[in-house]
Amino acid sequence: MNILEIIAKKRDKKELTKEEISFFVQEYTRGNIQDYQAAALIMAIYINGMSDRETTDLTLEMAYSGDVLDLSRFGTNVVDKHSTGGVGDKVSIILLPIIASIGIPVAKMSGRGLGFTGGTVDKMESIPGYRTNIGIEEFISNVEKIGISMIGQTMNLAPADKKIYALRDSISCVENIPLIASSIMSKKIASGANKIVLDVTVGKGAFMKNKEDAQKLVEQMVRIGNLANREVRCVLTPMDEPLGYSVGNSLEVIEAINFLKGDMPEDLKEVVLELGANMIQLAGLGDNIEENKLKMLEKINNGDGFNKLKEMVQNQGGDVSFLDDTSKFEKAKFIVAVETKKTGKVRDINAEEIGKLACFLGAGRLKKEDKIEPNVGIILNKKVGDIVEENDFLAYICANDEQKLEIARQKLLEIFVI
Amino acid sequence: MNILEIIAKKRDKKELTKEEISFFVQEYTRGNIQDYQAAALIMAIYINGMSDRETTDLTLEMAYSGDVLDLSRFGTNVVDKHSTGGVGDKVSIILLPIIASIGIPVAKMSGRGLGFTGGTVDKMESIPGYRTNIGIEEFISNVEKIGISMIGQTMNLAPADKKIYALRDSISCVENIPLIASSIMSKKIASGANKIVLDVTVGKGAFMKNKEDAQKLVEQMVRIGNLANREVRCVLTPMDEPLGYSVGNSLEVIEAINFLKGDMPEDLKEVVLELGANMIQLAGLGDNIEENKLKMLEKINNGDGFNKLKEMVQNQGGDVSFLDDTSKFEKAKFIVAVETKKTGKVRDINAEEIGKLACFLGAGRLKKEDKIEPNVGIILNKKVGDIVEENDFLAYICANDEQKLEIARQKLLEIFVI
Repeated sequence: MNILEIIAKKRDKKELTKEEISFFVQEYTRGNIQDYQAAALIMAIYINGMSDRETTDLTLEMAYSGDVLDLSRFGTNVVDKHSTGGVGDKVSIILLPIIASIGIPVAKMSGRGLGFTGGTVDKMESIPGYRTNIGIEEFISNVEKIGISMIGQTMNLAPADKKIYALRDSISCVENIPLIASSIMSKKIASGANKIVLDVTVGKGAFMKNKEDAQKLVEQMVRIGNLANREVRCVLTPMDEPLGYSVGNSLEVIEAINFLKGDMPEDLKEVVLELGANMIQLAGLGDNIEENKLKMLEKINNGDGFNKLKEMVQNQGGDVSFLDDTSKFEKAKFIVAVETKKTGKVRDINAEEIGKLACFLGAGRLKKEDKIEPNVGIILNKKVGDIVEENDFLAYICANDEQKLEIARQKLLEIFVI
Repeated sequence: MNILEIIAKKRDKKELTKEEISFFVQEYTRGNIQDYQAAALIMAIYINGMSDRETTDLTLEMAYSGDVLDLSRFGTNVVDKHSTGGVGDKVSIILLPIIASIGIPVAKMSGRGLGFTGGTVDKMESIPGYRTNIGIEEFISNVEKIGISMIGQTMNLAPADKKIYALRDSISCVENIPLIASSIMSKKIASGANKIVLDVTVGKGAFMKNKEDAQKLVEQMVRIGNLANREVRCVLTPMDEPLGYSVGNSLEVIEAINFLKGDMPEDLKEVVLELGANMIQLAGLGDNIEENKLKMLEKINNGDGFNKLKEMVQNQGGDVSFLDDTSKFEKAKFIVAVETKKTGKVRDINAEEIGKLACFLGAGRLKKEDKIEPNVGIILNKKVGDIVEENDFLAYICANDEQKLEIARQKLLEIFVI
């Protein structure tokens, strides 16, 4: 077997065998196949496609290219959750403590933010003292002890996916359903999940800009799941305007804490309940989606969800007094309300634009090495559908730099379509 | 303009502009575009194709990526000749002196052999003293003085083509008509040709294995020629068995010399006359192809062709006594006749296999750095269609290594299908 034959086969639109896919992934990860050869193969895959069998083989081969977490000690009802990314997405911080409080073990590894979308790890780290980089043993032992742990990706998780993804990014081969699906699924399988609820965001602030593409991605991931013996449930959620009101690390944590205290923005509530209800169902703890949602609301109302979050934060070294009193979170130097001169109905608040604006203020990174500022970002005061009158506040900008503040103010007035 | 956009366009089967093609060729040659990005684009071109306009733009951009020879001082009847390669192809050594003796200036740069096909430069160098690596000024002055010069590619000729060809070779993207056509035509245009006769070989020992592909290549090159303002004439010639009887450097030179002395193998004669008659027509020195052929035969019969070869060899430092007496060429250590045990008609002598066998004996190179042995090779005694009886000699093997000789003898018996 050699890479030239494999490239020629896919170039000619033929199906690759499991052995050929395995050869490619292993030898490329080891550096025995050159980047330009991998690039030619990836482009041929992009244009000529892959069968479900090929996509599944690629997924599994990438999943097993590095460490694979073994969560079998927690039984069969461990359910993982993954989102394809959005703006203002603080769902994990809210949802997972509720799920844990119901008795489903939560062992969650999250990523950092890159580009206009934030990352759960960055957000959690805005709680003083909270450690996201603990070892796998402590991670597992935390889940055993209190039923939940949320950390960063400390393991060598799917290195083949990492290498192939970086290459795709530099050869215009990112937006391809089989490649996106196998990338997501390989990481989930390497994280030890047997049951997975996937939050596929769709809209202006999401990777998938339209419903048909999102639907194709969903179907592809479900088929991979079936072939790879993983139970996969996908939930399509809208991501045209930011989710909830806050965008920015500590700002989103505060919103998540308030949510668990009962202050629930409608759109955020819908996503949290929908995903959670599916997780409960997959875990075998409730067949009826609507009943599951009620169960979750009960866990919010009786404080169990909030207490579970506190327990987890305390267990990983975080200062829980910030959860009890969110006014303790350090504020940005400048917090300025943005007033409108218009009257009418808010028609659009482009999530991607808001995400980029928060990133510009310092909430995100353009490069992996960039440092973030936890306390900057945007707090919306109006959402799509709201009526505004002249001099109403559209949003608050939290910034540490006066120049950036002024640019952001102008930009925000453009982003709000009234 | 950036390479990611260009890759994405061709990935999506869109037509690239002249500016985009120019950007790619220039920046890739300069090293500002990575090999993996070029690989992705080349694969997208391979699968999604190029329009004639794109192919022509690519051709011209590659042609002008390095030095371009200016032959305008020789007027408008300079005609170049190029073959897509074959086994036993000594046509240039015979044809070009005849053409020069007719009064058409010949300024010919040739390549070295690689793989199973030989190169004219290697062949000419088996004449002791003949210098193929003279500078461009001497080259031009030779053509001015005696009407002919044949040298190696000493200029920085179409470096973009060289780089892209090497990449194609390592990503399974060689066999693609627009890419082959633009590679050939770019080198011809850089060599200063305005009128070009292309010998497109087709068959088992050629790049193009079947007539339809060869025909497509011909049409593509003619279209490029039209769009690039070059007069192009293509002649399809068969390359199933080797051309003539000899395969190997000095062996082929001897056959070429004998040809010019009147000893003309039928298949070789046909190719020489057909190509030459077209060159004469393109040069404006004779509209009638059959009359042109007769004119060439006259130049062979009256010794003008042979004398022109001698003149050129002398002019470039070669020992012409070898031309008068070919027995002076150093012989291989072992020259052994291969006898058959069969009786019947020769049905096949696979040219590629014979070429590989000659290469194995030392007549060719597998890598650019390999040294060749001028005196080894194969001299056929029977050609396809000949009747053979038991104990007839099929061929002679010329070898310097006894072990290789024996392997070659066995292999030769397999190659002859009787």
